[in-house]
Amino acid sequence: MPTAAVVIIGTEILTGKFADENAPFLIGRLRSLGLDLGRIVVVPDQMPVMVEELRRCISGFDWVFSTGGVGPTHDDLTFPAVAQAFGVPLVREPILERMIQSKFGENAAALRMAEIPEGAELWWDGEIAWPQVVMKNLVIFPGVPKLVRMKFDAICHRFSGVPVQTRRIHTLADEAEIADVLTTAAQRWPGVDIGSYPRFEERPHRVIVTMEARDPEALDACAAWLLLHVPGAASAPA
Amino acid sequence: MPTAAVVIIGTEILTGKFADENAPFLIGRLRSLGLDLGRIVVVPDQMPVMVEELRRCISGFDWVFSTGGVGPTHDDLTFPAVAQAFGVPLVREPILERMIQSKFGENAAALRMAEIPEGAELWWDGEIAWPQVVMKNLVIFPGVPKLVRMKFDAICHRFSGVPVQTRRIHTLADEAEIADVLTTAAQRWPGVDIGSYPRFEERPHRVIVTMEARDPEALDACAAWLLLHVPGAASAPA
Repeated sequence: MPTAAVVIIGTEILTGKFADENAPFLIGRLRSLGLDLGRIVVVPDQMPVMVEELRRCISGFDWVFSTGGVGPTHDDLTFPAVAQAFGVPLVREPILERMIQSKFGENAAALRMAEIPEGAELWWDGEIAWPQVVMKNLVIFPGVPKLVRMKFDAICHRFSGVPVQTRRIHTLADEAEIADVLTTAAQRWPGVDIGSYPRFEERPHRVIVTMEARDPEALDACAAWLLLHVPGAASAPA
Repeated sequence: MPTAAVVIIGTEILTGKFADENAPFLIGRLRSLGLDLGRIVVVPDQMPVMVEELRRCISGFDWVFSTGGVGPTHDDLTFPAVAQAFGVPLVREPILERMIQSKFGENAAALRMAEIPEGAELWWDGEIAWPQVVMKNLVIFPGVPKLVRMKFDAICHRFSGVPVQTRRIHTLADEAEIADVLTTAAQRWPGVDIGSYPRFEERPHRVIVTMEARDPEALDACAAWLLLHVPGAASAPA
C-alpha cells in the first residue's frame, strides 16, 4: 500500500495561536483512501528545520503532504525549503506569474508565490481557482484549513489504496489481564494490527481492543478468536 | 528560554482510531509556562522509528515530553525505545515492581511496566498514585489524555520560563498588500515574531497579524508601528 507523511509547517500551531485542523482532516481522508499514514510532524517556519524534515519524509514515504508557508509574506518559506530539500533552484512559473500579475499587478511580494521549485508540476484538477503545486511526491498545500479541504478533495482521485477495515471489542478486564491473549493473537495473525487502549475517562473503566487489516478474513478470524479468549469481551461498533 | 519537543507515540492517532488530545493540551500548557515548543511528532508504535525520533529530540531540546506506549500490552514499546535511544539497558525498578505485585500479583505482562531505562528517576510530585518516570530530559507520559493532564499538572512547577506575550491586529487588505510592511517590521524588531494568517473562512476575508515577544516594550512599539502602517489595520483581542 502507498505510504504517506504529513508535514505541518507553522510556528502558529506550536505557539498555540491557532489549533491545527489540517492533520485531523488528512488523517481521516488518507485512511478512507487506504494510504498508510506513518508520520505527522509539526515544524516551525525555519528553513533548516523545514529542509531537514522535508528531506526525511520525501525519501521515506510514497506521498508527502505539507501544509502552510506558501503565501506572500516574510514568514512564508515553504517553496524555498522544498527547493533546497530536492536540491533544485526556484524558478518563476509563467502561468502563476500571469495569474498573480492580473490580480495584484507588479507586486513583488505576491510574485514570490510564483517562484516554485524547478521541476514542480501544476495540477488543475477540479474547480479550484489556483492550481495545486506538486514537487515529485510532495503535495504542497497552503495552511488555511478551508483551502486544504477544497484542494485535497479536488486531487484525491489520484491516490488509491485498499482501505483498512476495523473491528473493535471492549472489556471491563484490566489491560494486564488481557496482555498475554493479545500477544498470542498478534503472533497468530501478523497481518492484523491489534491495539489496546484503556479508557479511564469512562466509568466503569474499560479497555478497547482494536483490530485492523486489509484482509477481512484474517480480521474476522482474529476478532472471533479474541471474543472467545479475552475475559468479558463484547463486540463494539467499529 | 527552555525549549521543548513533544513526541506522540501512537499508531492509533495515525490511523484515526482516536483523535490526539495530548498535543493540543501540551501546546497550551507549555506556552503558559514560557517554554518554547519547537517540534511535535506523531510516530507509530515501531521501535526503529521511535528510537530515531526520541534521539533527535533528546539531543535537540531542553525538555521532551512523550505520550503513549507505557502499558502492559505487546504494542507498548516506549520504555525499550527510550532505553535504546539513551544507550542504556532496561532494569526492573523495585518500587514499581512492588506496586505492581500488590495490585496484580506475579503478572508478567504487568511487571513489564516496572522495566524502565537504567538511570530513570521517579518523581512523586502531587497526589498522583503512580510516580512520573523521567529519563534525564525526557518526561514519559502514558497515552490516556486524562492521565496526561493529571500528571503534567502535578509536575509543571518544575518547568519555568518567561511566558510570551501576544498582540494582534487585523485588516481587510490582502496579504500581498501588507507583505512589505511586515518585512520591514520583522527587520526592525528582530525579537518580535510576526505572523500573518489569512482567514478565508470568514466574510469579509481578513488577515490576522500576530506579534509575539517576551519583551513587552518591543512588542508594543512594533504593534503601534504596524497599526500605523498596515492599510486598514485595527487592533484585535490577543
